[in-house]
Amino acid sequence: MIPTRVIEEKRDGRALEPRALELFLQAYLRGDVPDHQMAAFLMAAYFQGLDDGETEVFVRCMLESGSILDLSHLPGPRVDKHSTGGVGDKVSLVLAPLAAALGLFVPMISGRGLGHTGGTLDKLEAMPGFRTDLELVRFRQILEDVGCAMIGQTAEIAPLDRRLYALRDVTATVPAIPLIAASIMSKKLAEGLTGLLLDVKVGSGAFIPEEVRALELAEKMIAIGTARDLPTVALLTAMDRPLGCTVGNGIETAEAIRCLRGGGPADLRELVLLEAAEMVRLAEPAVGAAEALTRATAAMDSGRALERFARLVEAQGGDPRVVDDPDSLYTAPVSVEAKAARAGIVLEVAPRALGEGVVSLGGGRVLMEQAIDPGVGFEVLVAPGDEVAKGDVLGVVHAVDGDGARLGSQVIQRAVRIGKAGETVERRPLVSHRIGPEAGGQVD
Amino acid sequence: MIPTRVIEEKRDGRALEPRALELFLQAYLRGDVPDHQMAAFLMAAYFQGLDDGETEVFVRCMLESGSILDLSHLPGPRVDKHSTGGVGDKVSLVLAPLAAALGLFVPMISGRGLGHTGGTLDKLEAMPGFRTDLELVRFRQILEDVGCAMIGQTAEIAPLDRRLYALRDVTATVPAIPLIAASIMSKKLAEGLTGLLLDVKVGSGAFIPEEVRALELAEKMIAIGTARDLPTVALLTAMDRPLGCTVGNGIETAEAIRCLRGGGPADLRELVLLEAAEMVRLAEPAVGAAEALTRATAAMDSGRALERFARLVEAQGGDPRVVDDPDSLYTAPVSVEAKAARAGIVLEVAPRALGEGVVSLGGGRVLMEQAIDPGVGFEVLVAPGDEVAKGDVLGVVHAVDGDGARLGSQVIQRAVRIGKAGETVERRPLVSHRIGPEAGGQVD
Repeated sequence: MIPTRVIEEKRDGRALEPRALELFLQAYLRGDVPDHQMAAFLMAAYFQGLDDGETEVFVRCMLESGSILDLSHLPGPRVDKHSTGGVGDKVSLVLAPLAAALGLFVPMISGRGLGHTGGTLDKLEAMPGFRTDLELVRFRQILEDVGCAMIGQTAEIAPLDRRLYALRDVTATVPAIPLIAASIMSKKLAEGLTGLLLDVKVGSGAFIPEEVRALELAEKMIAIGTARDLPTVALLTAMDRPLGCTVGNGIETAEAIRCLRGGGPADLRELVLLEAAEMVRLAEPAVGAAEALTRATAAMDSGRALERFARLVEAQGGDPRVVDDPDSLYTAPVSVEAKAARAGIVLEVAPRALGEGVVSLGGGRVLMEQAIDPGVGFEVLVAPGDEVAKGDVLGVVHAVDGDGARLGSQVIQRAVRIGKAGETVERRPLVSHRIGPEAGGQVD
Repeated sequence: MIPTRVIEEKRDGRALEPRALELFLQAYLRGDVPDHQMAAFLMAAYFQGLDDGETEVFVRCMLESGSILDLSHLPGPRVDKHSTGGVGDKVSLVLAPLAAALGLFVPMISGRGLGHTGGTLDKLEAMPGFRTDLELVRFRQILEDVGCAMIGQTAEIAPLDRRLYALRDVTATVPAIPLIAASIMSKKLAEGLTGLLLDVKVGSGAFIPEEVRALELAEKMIAIGTARDLPTVALLTAMDRPLGCTVGNGIETAEAIRCLRGGGPADLRELVLLEAAEMVRLAEPAVGAAEALTRATAAMDSGRALERFARLVEAQGGDPRVVDDPDSLYTAPVSVEAKAARAGIVLEVAPRALGEGVVSLGGGRVLMEQAIDPGVGFEVLVAPGDEVAKGDVLGVVHAVDGDGARLGSQVIQRAVRIGKAGETVERRPLVSHRIGPEAGGQVD
């Protein structure tokens, strides 16, 4: 294997010998192929793609570079959900305890927010005392006791993926679909699952905004899971607007808790229940869609999901009082309402503007090392299609000071686009496609 | 300037802000942009190209990263020739002293052979004692005394180009036309010239085999020269076969000396005289093509070019006896003839096979650090279009031992493709195009 030759073949769009690619990746892991050669390869792969065989070599090398959890002793199916990331996406916080209440084990390894999208770990850590940096032995114990546990990627899981991701991040090679698919699936395959649900976001706030490319990503990931006998289903879900009414860490966690308590916004509740039903069906394929949804709804409305969440918070070191008092997570000292400058119909609530707004307020990061303020963020009180009068409250900014509040107010004004009454409002269905190995296609 | 943003813009094919690209290159030179970010940028540029403005920024940053020779005190025009590299290309060794004999000053900074192509420095150093690593002060002195001087790239000249070239070499990003053009031109512009002749090789033995891309390279280089008021002319010359009859270092130098003595192969002599005439016209635009060729032929045939060469060899530490005894450069201990396995017509003498054959014999290098044996190589006694009988000598291998001789013999058998009498032989004209800022186009 001559590294320059491997780069050259990819550059010229020739299919790589699987063994040569494997040796190339292994040499990179050992330090024998330097970052600059890998960076050139990744950019060539951005342009030329990776075929299924090459993607499989990436998955295998990433997976085998670290530990694969053996959770086969658990007395039930092990099903996780992965989201490709969006704005206001607090689904995992509700879904993991709900799935646990439905008898599943959810060994969830999540990420942090980066750029305009939030991350589950940051939302969890907005709860005082909550720790996501647990040792794997403690993670397994909580999983056994509670049915779900939520931590960050550890050094043991897919270290090759960590190194490649860090390199892609600084070389503008993140948005390459086969690389994204391999990166996500290598981590999920390391969780030792019996079923996997993928929430692939689509729309302007998603990493991959275009539907056709989001579908491609979903199909690539399903192919990887299926090739390794992991039942995998993907839902394409709307990210042309934020999910729910909150964007920010603590206030999103508060919204997740309200959802667990039977309240919260309708779109969040609907998506969580649909996803929980999919997870049930991944565990028990004989269960019909309606029956699975009924079970999920019952587990939520009976308070069993909330009870699991409370146990999770306590097990991971958090103060369980937040469960009864989610408003305590509103810690930013200054709150200001942003009002409609004119009457009309809401054409768009731009998720990316709000996500980037959270970064500007100090609640997100551009570099992985940055510290964040969990209290800041936005409540958005209007949705595409709503009619507003001049002076109506569009949203609320939670900021650290008056300057932040003014800045945040402008962000809301820019994000909420108001048109004339009668103008057509385009919005994606909450779930537009369901894709599985057995059957798939458009839902709506 | 955010490095990842610069890479992203190039990746997405957007035109870069010149100032952002300049800051990116300067940060790389300082070490603030690491090799892996530059490698990703270079691969993106391989796919998306560089427009004229971006190429100009590369040229400027490379040029300004080092010294620019001030040779304005010399009492005559300063004209150099650059070849894009080929197999058997010993033109510079004849051309530099010939141009000096014509009253020009030739401050030639050359390269080494890499891969299948040879390099002028290696051919010069095949002469015992000849040094190419002179200080710039000595280089200037020889130039004043002899009219020409020939050294390798120094640390003072375009250090940014050196670093970028080394990086491109290991990241499969060498064959990007704007980068090649910028690299060549930044070094030539640093020589403080008043005229520049470009010998752009085209055909299977060239770095850029395709005519259309070779033309593109020529035009890019001319545009760079013209933008900086350096009169620049390019010739597209044949590299679908070796130039002359020898491939290897010492034996090519011997052939160059025979040419200076009035002998040597016809194609080498013809190309050298045409190029010398172009250099005369770059210095004195009023001189017609025929008159320039007459002057060049006279300078060669009178022995004045040979006399300059002898002075050059002596000034640069070489043993001047080689000038009278070029056969002393045949130092390989074993010589073997390769004979035609069947009768027919020579369809092709594949230059790349012979160039790579020299590397196999130990006379070339794959990595820049490798030491080479100057004595080995090939004499090729047939050319495309020749009729051969079975058993005719196709060529002679000069090798260090019997194994090398056997290997080399196979190389000749493979390189010389013999077809049936009557088959069409395709060969490029020695000079197919002449391109200048004023007028251009196809020659033949």
